[in-house]
Amino acid sequence: VLSFAELFRLPAETTMREVMRTSPAVLASEDQEKVASIALHFGLNSVPVVDNGRHLLGVVPAKALLHILRHEHVEDIQRLAGIRRETNIARRALDTPPMRRARDRLPWLIVGLIGSMLATFVMSRFEAALNEKLALAFFVPGLVYLADAIGTQTEAVAVRGISLSHIGITRLLAGELRTGLIIGLVLGGLTFPAVWLVFGEARLALAVASSLFVAGGLATTIGLVLPWLLTKFKRDPAFGSGPLATVIQDVLTLLTYFAIVSLMYGPGA
Amino acid sequence: VLSFAELFRLPAETTMREVMRTSPAVLASEDQEKVASIALHFGLNSVPVVDNGRHLLGVVPAKALLHILRHEHVEDIQRLAGIRRETNIARRALDTPPMRRARDRLPWLIVGLIGSMLATFVMSRFEAALNEKLALAFFVPGLVYLADAIGTQTEAVAVRGISLSHIGITRLLAGELRTGLIIGLVLGGLTFPAVWLVFGEARLALAVASSLFVAGGLATTIGLVLPWLLTKFKRDPAFGSGPLATVIQDVLTLLTYFAIVSLMYGPGA
Repeated sequence: VLSFAELFRLPAETTMREVMRTSPAVLASEDQEKVASIALHFGLNSVPVVDNGRHLLGVVPAKALLHILRHEHVEDIQRLAGIRRETNIARRALDTPPMRRARDRLPWLIVGLIGSMLATFVMSRFEAALNEKLALAFFVPGLVYLADAIGTQTEAVAVRGISLSHIGITRLLAGELRTGLIIGLVLGGLTFPAVWLVFGEARLALAVASSLFVAGGLATTIGLVLPWLLTKFKRDPAFGSGPLATVIQDVLTLLTYFAIVSLMYGPGA
Repeated sequence: VLSFAELFRLPAETTMREVMRTSPAVLASEDQEKVASIALHFGLNSVPVVDNGRHLLGVVPAKALLHILRHEHVEDIQRLAGIRRETNIARRALDTPPMRRARDRLPWLIVGLIGSMLATFVMSRFEAALNEKLALAFFVPGLVYLADAIGTQTEAVAVRGISLSHIGITRLLAGELRTGLIIGLVLGGLTFPAVWLVFGEARLALAVASSLFVAGGLATTIGLVLPWLLTKFKRDPAFGSGPLATVIQDVLTLLTYFAIVSLMYGPGA
């Protein structure tokens, strides 16, 4: 390829063979997101399309590349949130009739509903502990919320980062696990004195704070592993990462919390 | 403007004045996201930059526009998740040291921690009802999770949709409220027989199901209003929408649930 600016700057006697640079090109069957990534990576204004024998079939112009990137942007966010209609442009999603909007959003929510039933089941298994000490229930929504928030941050980074990063999953996991534990340590460190002060019980404060610490590490791990698994199975890592990862985090956070409580209050509680 | 293809196709005697089309152009002070939107909207490969007297200063080339869109993509997702480092490219976010990653993510999480304390406070206010009927606590994580998931879907749509849509906020709200209520109706409709069957109590099942119905409407409303308010105050609608809207939804969902419980079980419970 050669830009027009370069073409005009050449001496008249130059032949094309001397000045052409070989360019990255894509097959007609290539995924559109890949085409846009190639343009970004090589700093191209447009991407040549070739057949198997590298004969030029045409060019993907800049305006098409711009539309692809905007489309991927909207698609990523909607998939992360578990909305089905991927072809919808952002503007339309607020124009479609409510009934249709509900239909696009319900499939992942129903998966979430099944997860919620599991969370309810886990809670009911700890009826004895809750009966013994009702205050334990007070921290459930907060713990579940914070684990979700921590996990969502990891997913937001992982959903694009995994395919772009050249680091192996083990090292990525080690990094995110450490990040989650640092976050858990800070949040737990802030929670411990607050709970102790308000509820006047160091053991309860320690149970909540250490649950936050463990939940931090769990949340970042799941937030990374789920998109990674989806990539492994050739699915878009954004696909359902949000609702699915969140409900898994919820259930694991509850199990962690009650395990720590059992440990601290003895098996009776 | 005129493309090279058009230029070459013209008869030799044509003057430029006859064939030039006026083009949308931007001032040098324009926001880069706006520039990319103009290119997308008018189907341009590059965008001319002019001064106040409409003298051409230069052109934003396609490859710069592509980088702007990719940057906005990553920025939107990270802001939605409440990650501070906006300039970070996705790849780097998995390469930075864990300590720095934790620092970038903690500010919004600490806002969330304060919200969690509020959720704990709300739960503790309903100690009497929970003491009377512990099973009420079992549904807390599930309800909170589902309200979050519904709200996140609305935010995902709203964060780009609000600025692109030409519909007034009242009509947008009416549409999203209806969507949320339909979703709540379906999820509540599925929950009612399940809870009735497992816990053998129609009143408990009705309390949980109707909380889901109301929470659906609340979640979509907050998921739309918060990004809209941020747009009003000239902030990026993605900014902290995630963690902030979620914790507001959590607290309102808890209040709704316990209000409905009080209504059904009498003020004593």
